[in-house]
Amino acid sequence: MIKNKYTSGIIQYIPFFYVIWSDDLLSASEINIVKNAIDNDASLSKEDSSLLLQWLNTAKKPSNKEIKSWKQTISSTSIKLIESDIHPLSNFSKRLLEYYFNESIENKQLQHIEINLGIQPNHYNHLFDVEVIHEPTSNYYNSGSIDTILKGEHKTIVNDFHQVVKDPIFNWTIERKKEDFRKKVLDQVKFLAKEKYGAMAYPSAYGGTNNMPGYAFVFENMMYVDGSLAIKFGVQFGLFGGSIQKLGSKEHHDLYLGKAGKTELLGCFAMTETGHGSNVRGIKTTATYENSSDSLIIHTPGTNDNKEYIGNALDSKMASVFAQLIVNGKNEGVHAILVPLRDENHNLLPGVKIEDNGYKLGLNGVDNGKIWFNQVKVPRKNLLNKYGSISDEGHYHSHIKNPNKRFFTMLGTLVGGRICVARAGLGGAKMALTIAVKHALKRRQFNDSIKIQEDLLMDYPTHQLRLTPAIAKAYVYDITLQHAMKIYSDDSKTDKREIETQVAGLKSVITWFANETIQECREACGGKGYLIENRIADLKGDVDIFTTFEGDNTVLLQLAAKGVLSDFNSEFNSAGFSAVLKLLGNQINDKITTINPLYSSKVDAKHLYNPKFHLHAFDYRTRRLTYSIAMRIRNYIKSGIPSYQAFLKVQTHLLALGKAYSCEYAYKTFVSFTEDITDEKNKALFKKLGTLYALHEIRTDASWYLEQGYISGVKSKAIRQRIERISTELRPHIDVLVDGFGIPEHLITAPIAN
Amino acid sequence: MIKNKYTSGIIQYIPFFYVIWSDDLLSASEINIVKNAIDNDASLSKEDSSLLLQWLNTAKKPSNKEIKSWKQTISSTSIKLIESDIHPLSNFSKRLLEYYFNESIENKQLQHIEINLGIQPNHYNHLFDVEVIHEPTSNYYNSGSIDTILKGEHKTIVNDFHQVVKDPIFNWTIERKKEDFRKKVLDQVKFLAKEKYGAMAYPSAYGGTNNMPGYAFVFENMMYVDGSLAIKFGVQFGLFGGSIQKLGSKEHHDLYLGKAGKTELLGCFAMTETGHGSNVRGIKTTATYENSSDSLIIHTPGTNDNKEYIGNALDSKMASVFAQLIVNGKNEGVHAILVPLRDENHNLLPGVKIEDNGYKLGLNGVDNGKIWFNQVKVPRKNLLNKYGSISDEGHYHSHIKNPNKRFFTMLGTLVGGRICVARAGLGGAKMALTIAVKHALKRRQFNDSIKIQEDLLMDYPTHQLRLTPAIAKAYVYDITLQHAMKIYSDDSKTDKREIETQVAGLKSVITWFANETIQECREACGGKGYLIENRIADLKGDVDIFTTFEGDNTVLLQLAAKGVLSDFNSEFNSAGFSAVLKLLGNQINDKITTINPLYSSKVDAKHLYNPKFHLHAFDYRTRRLTYSIAMRIRNYIKSGIPSYQAFLKVQTHLLALGKAYSCEYAYKTFVSFTEDITDEKNKALFKKLGTLYALHEIRTDASWYLEQGYISGVKSKAIRQRIERISTELRPHIDVLVDGFGIPEHLITAPIAN
Repeated sequence: MIKNKYTSGIIQYIPFFYVIWSDDLLSASEINIVKNAIDNDASLSKEDSSLLLQWLNTAKKPSNKEIKSWKQTISSTSIKLIESDIHPLSNFSKRLLEYYFNESIENKQLQHIEINLGIQPNHYNHLFDVEVIHEPTSNYYNSGSIDTILKGEHKTIVNDFHQVVKDPIFNWTIERKKEDFRKKVLDQVKFLAKEKYGAMAYPSAYGGTNNMPGYAFVFENMMYVDGSLAIKFGVQFGLFGGSIQKLGSKEHHDLYLGKAGKTELLGCFAMTETGHGSNVRGIKTTATYENSSDSLIIHTPGTNDNKEYIGNALDSKMASVFAQLIVNGKNEGVHAILVPLRDENHNLLPGVKIEDNGYKLGLNGVDNGKIWFNQVKVPRKNLLNKYGSISDEGHYHSHIKNPNKRFFTMLGTLVGGRICVARAGLGGAKMALTIAVKHALKRRQFNDSIKIQEDLLMDYPTHQLRLTPAIAKAYVYDITLQHAMKIYSDDSKTDKREIETQVAGLKSVITWFANETIQECREACGGKGYLIENRIADLKGDVDIFTTFEGDNTVLLQLAAKGVLSDFNSEFNSAGFSAVLKLLGNQINDKITTINPLYSSKVDAKHLYNPKFHLHAFDYRTRRLTYSIAMRIRNYIKSGIPSYQAFLKVQTHLLALGKAYSCEYAYKTFVSFTEDITDEKNKALFKKLGTLYALHEIRTDASWYLEQGYISGVKSKAIRQRIERISTELRPHIDVLVDGFGIPEHLITAPIAN
Repeated sequence: MIKNKYTSGIIQYIPFFYVIWSDDLLSASEINIVKNAIDNDASLSKEDSSLLLQWLNTAKKPSNKEIKSWKQTISSTSIKLIESDIHPLSNFSKRLLEYYFNESIENKQLQHIEINLGIQPNHYNHLFDVEVIHEPTSNYYNSGSIDTILKGEHKTIVNDFHQVVKDPIFNWTIERKKEDFRKKVLDQVKFLAKEKYGAMAYPSAYGGTNNMPGYAFVFENMMYVDGSLAIKFGVQFGLFGGSIQKLGSKEHHDLYLGKAGKTELLGCFAMTETGHGSNVRGIKTTATYENSSDSLIIHTPGTNDNKEYIGNALDSKMASVFAQLIVNGKNEGVHAILVPLRDENHNLLPGVKIEDNGYKLGLNGVDNGKIWFNQVKVPRKNLLNKYGSISDEGHYHSHIKNPNKRFFTMLGTLVGGRICVARAGLGGAKMALTIAVKHALKRRQFNDSIKIQEDLLMDYPTHQLRLTPAIAKAYVYDITLQHAMKIYSDDSKTDKREIETQVAGLKSVITWFANETIQECREACGGKGYLIENRIADLKGDVDIFTTFEGDNTVLLQLAAKGVLSDFNSEFNSAGFSAVLKLLGNQINDKITTINPLYSSKVDAKHLYNPKFHLHAFDYRTRRLTYSIAMRIRNYIKSGIPSYQAFLKVQTHLLALGKAYSCEYAYKTFVSFTEDITDEKNKALFKKLGTLYALHEIRTDASWYLEQGYISGVKSKAIRQRIERISTELRPHIDVLVDGFGIPEHLITAPIAN
C-alpha cells in the first residue's frame, strides 16, 4: 500500500469528483445520479459516504486546495488513461485503487455514474496530466446499423444503386468545358435509364415500379456522384416525364412516358420565364386554340416572356410548355402543352429559338437554355389534359370548375420535385460533412507546448460546434423528408394541401441548411476545402441554386405561412388572401398559455433533454407567431388597408412563421420515428441527436423566446452550454455518425477524406 | 367647397394622422414632434388643435371607424400622390385642402412633421388607395458627393485607376481554362506594373510613392475588374515584394525591390505548408547554415512539409521562403530566405519541385502551387536579415533578443496584407450589392390584383431587409478599414500590437460579412444571380477563401480576443498564454455597472437612434465578455487545469469576444468619422447608416443582451422594428447609396445591372 491521505473507498471516487468539480456543468438531476450511486455503494463505509456526499454540496463547493490535492493524488501515480476501455474513467479509478491499496474491485456504481452522466474521455482526459492512450474515434456504435435505420425498407434499392455507379462512366473528374461536361452527364443519364432508374416512379406499364420514395433515395444518392447528374436526371424523368405522367392522360402516357423513361425521348420542362420566375400564374406565353386547324398556337409575346433556365433545353426533342390557354377568346389559365422542339437530326423546328444560358456558378453539366416560340402550331391532343381539355367541338372543359383551384391542383402534382430537391441538398450537406469530419480526424493544428504532436482539428470545441449540430440536423431532416415523401405518395389521401404547405417550408429550410453546412465545411477544411479535387467546392456551387429553383425559398416560406394561417384550408400557392382572411377568425381565438416563471427558469438536464420541453417550445412559437400575425393583419384590414398591403407589412413575420412551423414539423416527425426504434442503444443515440437539433433550434431563436419570456436568461445560457456539451459527448462517435449517412467509400473521392 | 365632416384646419392633418395610426410605430419623442407642430400651427383654431391633440393620445387611440372615415375623406377625391414632390405628404395635404375648401396654403408645420418623422412615400403610398405617381428612386442625395466622402484624399488615385483599367486588356470575359486565365491575369499584372501601381507602396527609390493607404484603395478597386487580378497582384507586390521591403535590408531592396515592382522579377511568398496552415511557428522547412560553403541549405524534411497554395508558384523565378533557421546547430526560429526557383528559361533549378494546385472554387486566374526543396543551397546573403542575421563569422545575431517577440515582429510587418484582404472582400460585397440593387430596381414580381404592373423587388420589405443593412455595414467597414490602414501605415507609431489585434478581428468579421452578403445578393437575384455573366457567381467563388487565407478567421478571432484580454500587452499572435494570464488580474477587477431597468426598457426613437446608446451597448458587451472569460480562465487555472486546456475550454467564448471587440471598434471609428462630415445633409445620412449598422449588430446578439438583462424583451422588439423602418426609409435612396460606392459604370458589366 502506498501512502496517501484518502481511504480506499474515497480513492476510487477521486477521479470522478475531480472531473465533476473542475467544470461546473452539473445540474440537480446529474448530482442526483452521483448521490444515488454513493447511497447504493456497499463498499463505502459510513464515514466515506458522508464525506463524499458532503463533497457534492453545490452550496459549498470543495475548496481549490482540496481539488488540487485530488489532482496531486492522481498525477503522482504513473497510471495511464486508456480511452479504449469500455468504462475508461471507472477503469482508471480501478487502477488508482490498485496502485494505492493493491485491491482490485470492479465498482458497478462508478460505471453507473460514468454511463448516466454521459462523461467521455474527451471531457476529462486533459485534466489529469497523465499519459492518455488516445483513441481518435470510438466504435461503440455501429455505422452499418445506423445506416440501416436511416434507409429502412429502401436499403436494397440504394445499395444496388451504389453498385451500379461503380461503372467507370460515373468516375468523378474535373470538367471545365460545359460541352464536354454535358456530354458526360447525358451519357450517365442514359446509362441509368437503361438500368431502369429513370422510370422508377412511373407505373409498371411504362417500365417503372411506381416507387416515388425509392426514386427520392436514388436521387439523393446521385448527388454523391455529381450534382449535375442529379439535376439532369431530375429534369428528364421527374419534371418532363413527371408532367406527362401527372398532367397527361393515358394517350400521352402510351405515346411518351415509356420513351421518356428510357431516354428515347429527351424532354424539358418549360415553365419559368425571364420576366416571371416565382409568379407562374403571371407567365405570358400563350397557347391559343385555332378552330380551323384544330391546333394550339404556342407563342412568346414579349422580349422578356421567353422560357428561361430550362434544363435539358439543348438536348431535348420536346418540351412540356406552360402557357396561358386561350380557347374561343377566353383565357382558361395556365396549362401544359407538349411542344416538339427539334427534328430527328436535332435541328430546331420552325418558330422555335433556343439559346444556351452559358456558364453558371455550378451544375455546368446541365444544359440550361432560353426558349422562344414564334407562332408554333401543335395538334390539340398535345394539351396535357388531365385537369383541362378541349373537346372535339372546340370547347374547353375541366372537372375543376374553380380556375384557381385548377391551377394549384396542377402545380401540386409537382410537389414531389420539391421533396427531391430538398433531399438532394441534404445529400450535398451529408457529403460535405463526411469529408470535413474525415479531414478533421486526420489534420492536426497547434498543440499544448508539452506535447510533440499537434491536436486533431476535431478535438477543438469550435470545430465540434461547427460540425456536430449540423450532423444532428442532417439526421432529423433525413427522417422528416422520408416521412413527407410517404405522405405525399399515398394516393389514398387526395387532399394534399397540408403536405404541400409542409413541403414548401421544408424545402426552404433544408436547402438553406444545406448551403450553410457546405459553407461551414469548406471553411472547416481551410485551403484544402477550396480545391476542386476535394469536392466541397462543387457541392457548394451545385447546391447553391437549390434555394431558388423549384420555388424561391422566400416565396415558399410565405406560402407555407399562409397555409398555417388558414389551417391548410386555403388553396395552396394562392396569391389571393381571401381564404386566409376568412379563417383568421378561428385562429385569433387561440389562447396562449402564460408561461410559469418556474418553467421558464428550469435548467435541469432532465428538463432540457426532455423532448416534451422541445415540443412545447416549438408549438408555443408556431402558435404565438400565428396569433400575432393574425392580429396584425386583422388590425390593418380594420383600419382600411387593402389585404395585399396588409400581407406585405407582415412579410418578415410570415417568413419567421414558415420557418418555425417547419422546425416543429421536422422535430415532431423525428421524435415519433425515434420512439419506434427497437434497439435501445441506437434509440438513445437518435434521441441525443434529436435533442441537439432541438436545443440548437431553440438557441437560434433564443432572442425571440427571451423576448416572450418563454425562457429566462439563465435558461438560455444553460441551453447554450448543453449544446456545447452534447457536441463534445458525440465527439468520439462522430466518425460513425458520418459513416451512418451511408455514402459508399468509392464515391468519397476527395483526397483529404482518405 | 365640397362637403365633408372636417374643418379646413383638420383636413390638412388627416393624411398625416391616417399614416400615423395605420401603423403603430410612433414613440413618445415622435408623438412630441407632431404635438409641437400642432402647438405652433397658427392656422388652427383652438377647437381644431384640441381635437388633433386628442387624436394623438396613445392611451385612447382613435377608433377604427374614425380611421376609416379619414381614409374615405382621402380616397373619395381624385387627388394623386406625387412621390417626386419635395414634401410629398404635405403637398398631398395641400391638394386635399384645395379640393375641399379651395384654399391654397403651404403649411410649414406639416413639412416640419414630414421631415422630422422621416416618413417616406413608400411608408404610406399604399395606404390611401389613390393614384401614386411613382418614383423608383430619389435623387435627394448625390452619389458623387457620397463617393467623395468615402474616398477622401485618395479620390484622384482611384479615379485615375478607373481610367487605366478601361484598357481592353481588362475586359471581363468568362475564363474556364486555368492556363488561359492565368496568362490573361499575368498580362494584366504586368500592365499595372508598367503604370507604376505595383511599386506604389515602396519607397520612391524603388519606383514607388510610399503610399500604402492608396495601394489599399487600388487593391479594392481591382476586385471590380477581377478577383484573380487582385490576388495575383497582391502576391507579387504585397507579399513577395512586401517581404523584401519589410524583412530585408538595403542590399535586398537594391537588388530586388525595384525589379519586383516592375514585374521584372516574379516571385512568391512561401509560408504555408500542407501540414501547417495557421501554425506558422510550427512549419518544418529548414534553412541550415553551412559554415564551409557560407550558404543556407533549404530543405523540406517530410511529406507534408512542402509549401502549399503558394500563389504565383508557376510563374515565379524566386520565392521568399519561410523556414526554421538553424545556425551552428541551434534553431533560431522562423526566418525568410530568398530562394531562386527557376532559371532564365523558366526551368526549375536543381532540388526544387513545384506542382500545380489545380482548379479551385475561385481565383483560377492565380497559379497556386506546392513547392518542395531538396537540399537547395543559397548564399548566406539571401537571408532577409532585418530582424535576424548571420555574421561573416557565421554567428547568428538579432537586435530582438526574445525569439517570441522576434517572430511576431516579423509577422507583424505583414498585417497590411490583412487589411488589404478585408478591403478586397469588402469590394466584392459592394460590387454584389450594386448588382443586386440595380436588378431589384428593374425586376418586378407579383402584384396587387388591381395593378397591371407587378411590384419592384426592391419594394418588398424582405428584400429591403436583405440588402439595406448590408449596405450600411459596407459603409461602416469602409471607413473602419481606412482608419486601420492609416494607423498601421503611421511609421511614428512603433508599437503595433493594438492595431494588429484590431486588424485580426476586422479581417475576420469583414471577410465573413463579405461572404454572407455576396450569398444574400446571389439569392436576391434568383436564377440570374447564378449565371456567371452576372458576376456574382465569380465574386462568391473568389471571396470565399478570404475567410481562410492571410490567417484563418477562427484563429485570428482568438488572437484578437487574447489581445483584448491582455490589454494589448501580449506579444501578438502568441500561442503561449503567460502574458495573457499575467494581465488577467487587472481585468478581473473591472466593475460592470448594473443596468437600470428604465434604461433596459427604453424604446423611444430618440434613445434607440442615439449613438451613445449603441456605444454603451458595445462597450458593455466587450467588457462583460472580457470579464467573464477572465473569470472562467482564472477558475480553471486555480483548480489545476493547464493553461492551454483552460483556453481551449473558453474557445467559443473567445470567438464571441473577438467579434464584439471588432464591432465596437468599427462603430466607434465610424461615429467619429461621421462627426467630422461638414455637410449636414450627408452627415445625417451617414449617421442613419451608422444607426442601422449598430441596431443590426445589437439585434444579431440580442439573445446575449437579453440574457444579461441589458435590454428587455420590449426593447429587443422595438430594435427589430426600427431596423425594418430604417431599411424602408432608405429605400428611395438605395440606388444613390450603391452608386456612392463609386464602382465605375464600365466595370459593372453584369447584364442584370444594366
